Amino acid sequence: MAFSERVTRLKSSLIREILAAAQRPEVMSFAGGLPAEAMLPKVVWDEMPVAMGQYGMSEGEQALREALAAEARALGIECQASQVLVVSGSQQALDLAAKLYLDKGTEVLLEAPTYLAALQIFQLFGADCLAVPMQADGPDLAALRQRLQQHRPAFIYLIPTFQNPSGLRYSEAKRDAVAALLDEFGVTLIEDEPYRELSFDGASASPIVSRLRKASWIYTGTVSKTLLPGLRVGYLIASPDLFPYLLRLKQAADLHTNRVGQWQVLQWLGSEQHRQHLGTLRDYYRERRDAFQAALQTHFADLADWQQPEGGLFFWLTLKQPLDTRTLLAAALAVDVAFMPGEPFFPEPDQHHGHLRLNFSHVAPGQLEEGLRRLAQVVREGQRARAA
Amino acid sequence: MAFSERVTRLKSSLIREILAAAQRPEVMSFAGGLPAEAMLPKVVWDEMPVAMGQYGMSEGEQALREALAAEARALGIECQASQVLVVSGSQQALDLAAKLYLDKGTEVLLEAPTYLAALQIFQLFGADCLAVPMQADGPDLAALRQRLQQHRPAFIYLIPTFQNPSGLRYSEAKRDAVAALLDEFGVTLIEDEPYRELSFDGASASPIVSRLRKASWIYTGTVSKTLLPGLRVGYLIASPDLFPYLLRLKQAADLHTNRVGQWQVLQWLGSEQHRQHLGTLRDYYRERRDAFQAALQTHFADLADWQQPEGGLFFWLTLKQPLDTRTLLAAALAVDVAFMPGEPFFPEPDQHHGHLRLNFSHVAPGQLEEGLRRLAQVVREGQRARAA
Repeated sequence: MAFSERVTRLKSSLIREILAAAQRPEVMSFAGGLPAEAMLPKVVWDEMPVAMGQYGMSEGEQALREALAAEARALGIECQASQVLVVSGSQQALDLAAKLYLDKGTEVLLEAPTYLAALQIFQLFGADCLAVPMQADGPDLAALRQRLQQHRPAFIYLIPTFQNPSGLRYSEAKRDAVAALLDEFGVTLIEDEPYRELSFDGASASPIVSRLRKASWIYTGTVSKTLLPGLRVGYLIASPDLFPYLLRLKQAADLHTNRVGQWQVLQWLGSEQHRQHLGTLRDYYRERRDAFQAALQTHFADLADWQQPEGGLFFWLTLKQPLDTRTLLAAALAVDVAFMPGEPFFPEPDQHHGHLRLNFSHVAPGQLEEGLRRLAQVVREGQRARAA
Repeated sequence: MAFSERVTRLKSSLIREILAAAQRPEVMSFAGGLPAEAMLPKVVWDEMPVAMGQYGMSEGEQALREALAAEARALGIECQASQVLVVSGSQQALDLAAKLYLDKGTEVLLEAPTYLAALQIFQLFGADCLAVPMQADGPDLAALRQRLQQHRPAFIYLIPTFQNPSGLRYSEAKRDAVAALLDEFGVTLIEDEPYRELSFDGASASPIVSRLRKASWIYTGTVSKTLLPGLRVGYLIASPDLFPYLLRLKQAADLHTNRVGQWQVLQWLGSEQHRQHLGTLRDYYRERRDAFQAALQTHFADLADWQQPEGGLFFWLTLKQPLDTRTLLAAALAVDVAFMPGEPFFPEPDQHHGHLRLNFSHVAPGQLEEGLRRLAQVVREGQRARAA
């Protein structure tokens, strides 16, 4: 078998295995990041033109590009529809960026922890992933400056708003400081914002790309967290110097994004119906978040530290007595509880033991106490076994 | 700007430019390969479950995988649903295959001519593309054996049924001989069949992958030519040794294919409605093919040779006096006619002057004569200018 060199870096995905195990109906799963089934809006298709069945443009539907550009401008991003590329879920934006920038050994900067699937695709393409340590309000700026001085990363990949997995949101000051540093060193920013709309306190800081003056940038988002992930409609907006390359890479990847999904998204964007749906969604998730916080206090106060997230879908726990949380998985699944170990979210997993990512939106409130009680028990037994 | 080495091979796409120019409503376009707008079936969405809006499995919808496996078995391909991967249009199958096999300098075997977008993505990933010359009934077997003896290609990519661009269909004897050679040398076959169902004479030779005994294989198809391209639903079926790698690469590329399109395809596959639609489609395209053949006889008999295609969407013309047909494009567009020059369909364009690919399904019968008359005139003037 003569595969590409790249395939030697194609890891068996822990996530796939955990999510597969979590499919058993009796499992209480804190592992995934799925929108709540009850919150999927009912959509109608009656008015869709037959022409949406035909091949489309690689750029995406023009009307949708206009609408996405208008939303981005409302967030403070100076852009035109000509900079918008509709993609097949925002994961594809990472695939295109990897193709654009990465050879074997290319250095990139990432948050530590960072989004697992981003880490996987950057590593697949051979990236040398350098981590920037995180504080409660964003990156450690001294460490970031040091990395920028000592390395020549092709880009920095950031999730500044309700990060997956940590739930962190960068402060205004950190956003400004990061933008200034990237301008100073001329490093491209890839800013990933799937969770921006899932804000529980109403606060909304403008994206970092809107604060750049010189550096190139890619801003990416999706409707998967606020409308329907099954449509697989995401988008990227790029500085004009990058757009033509990303467009050709998109064409080579899958010609264009499915048009029926694009048409459906266009029916919602900017509508009163969408505004109302987002309000309902935030209320629902805020309530789940609050219930989770209370249950965590009961079962994990002596075991872990955490910050209550103001948005997104996850709690990020740091164990007071660190251990490799991957070793807890089998025991948790044996008592029908699934969670996501924290180690795989770091470029160097073995240097970052003791974190758990817990999704708060999926398990029904009635099962929550029991699920967290069992998980706390698994952690306690793991720590006891380790101490013994 | 520090892009990847790969991006130096990201060509400006001639196709994109031609298709963009062909968008002008006054242009008579023989350039594209779009299904006829009138033949897009009306689809209904009323019964689609809300759950199709949720995230899905990277493999694709299980019911759809079963249906696709059943269709493949009916063609003689021994396979199970577990070998089927639903992809975002069959172009994505080529992207995944490129990721699986190609490093810079990896040798691959291709038909000459071959599908342009395949050539582009294999070259983007750095492939060294070796061409196998084609005869009327399939590859030149002596040349194929020689290539297999002198090289170690990672795979061979073939479109044996109504090839794009040439319209060729391999004979039964050539299919058997190619399979035997690939088994003998242990070379993986990627067999691409977007046009299989568009057969005008009712003949149906079983795929080459069904004739392999040992070699690994990927078989890929799509509903884009027979149902709705806008759904972006294609599939690949792979030998069990390759499937796990392709699945993980699919997950890294875009998580999964859109579920609304998958659900719609499932409503059609194997249904009486689909059978009837395919019959209507074949009748419609056969009629267009016949009209095109007659008009070509009138306007091109003294200029070019061609074989009437028994399926697919294209005529492939070989000029009696070869010239670089790319040089004719501007003159053709100036008289509102678009066509596809043949050169880009070869790994070495400059060694293959004098072919034109003409789509016969798009231009309305009432405009056909005028369009081909103008195109013949452009060819004549080009040859006169060249002789002068």
